[in-house]
Amino acid sequence: MKLGRLNHVGVVTASMDDCIAFWRDTMGAEVIHAPFDMSEQGVRIAFVDTPDADGGNSGTQMELIEPLPGGAIAAWLEKNPGGGQHHLCFEVPDIHAAKAELEAMGKRVLGEPRMGAHGTLIFFVHPRDMQGILTEFMETPKGH
Amino acid sequence: MKLGRLNHVGVVTASMDDCIAFWRDTMGAEVIHAPFDMSEQGVRIAFVDTPDADGGNSGTQMELIEPLPGGAIAAWLEKNPGGGQHHLCFEVPDIHAAKAELEAMGKRVLGEPRMGAHGTLIFFVHPRDMQGILTEFMETPKGH
Repeated sequence: MKLGRLNHVGVVTASMDDCIAFWRDTMGAEVIHAPFDMSEQGVRIAFVDTPDADGGNSGTQMELIEPLPGGAIAAWLEKNPGGGQHHLCFEVPDIHAAKAELEAMGKRVLGEPRMGAHGTLIFFVHPRDMQGILTEFMETPKGH
Repeated sequence: MKLGRLNHVGVVTASMDDCIAFWRDTMGAEVIHAPFDMSEQGVRIAFVDTPDADGGNSGTQMELIEPLPGGAIAAWLEKNPGGGQHHLCFEVPDIHAAKAELEAMGKRVLGEPRMGAHGTLIFFVHPRDMQGILTEFMETPKGH
């Protein structure tokens, strides 16, 4: 595998409204995309754009995640009621090749590739196999 | 404040050697800078470059952190022996202005600005005031 772009950092919050207010008012984010539900994943999410090194807006995004009741991330929030950092997501050119390569290294891939919030396939790898980091891989969106 | 570039994501490891091997062999990083001690902070660190959106190498860096005995991060590692995500670091144009602005918002800035690993001044803000995220601010290096 060749290291891909850090697409986003996922952070969990108990309140999407509060989290959006934080990124807008405290951190000064200028582009915060409208939140939407991903019911099948049990989450409501919103992306925040960040600046890149060239003065553009294509830096690593923040993914704000509010658990919907009963989902896997609701349990995470119970253990971490103040919210916080949840996962890192790196882009790969071919999601199935990435899965095969990681599995060949003995890494525990969590389920089959499924549709992610950017409209491409994603999967997660168990943090115990990834230096304690819950790691998501996503196929790079076309045109990027 | 205006949101700055996400300079790096700090991750803690019990073993710098293992962590470097992970980023090189599992994740496929091509540029891993030599580790060095920051004794006054009680840490040994190394930076990993990641790709940006334009095919360059100026994406958000990974900061690998191995605690030196007795430092603040040694205690963090005791609570999280497998390592994992530790902090996010955003760039600001003026470190003192950023500190004043955050303090005016009631945020708990942890100590005075001090020299960071990139040779510019940095400070941290308490995660309880930052949506659960231990947040570092660093003055953008000159020439960036």
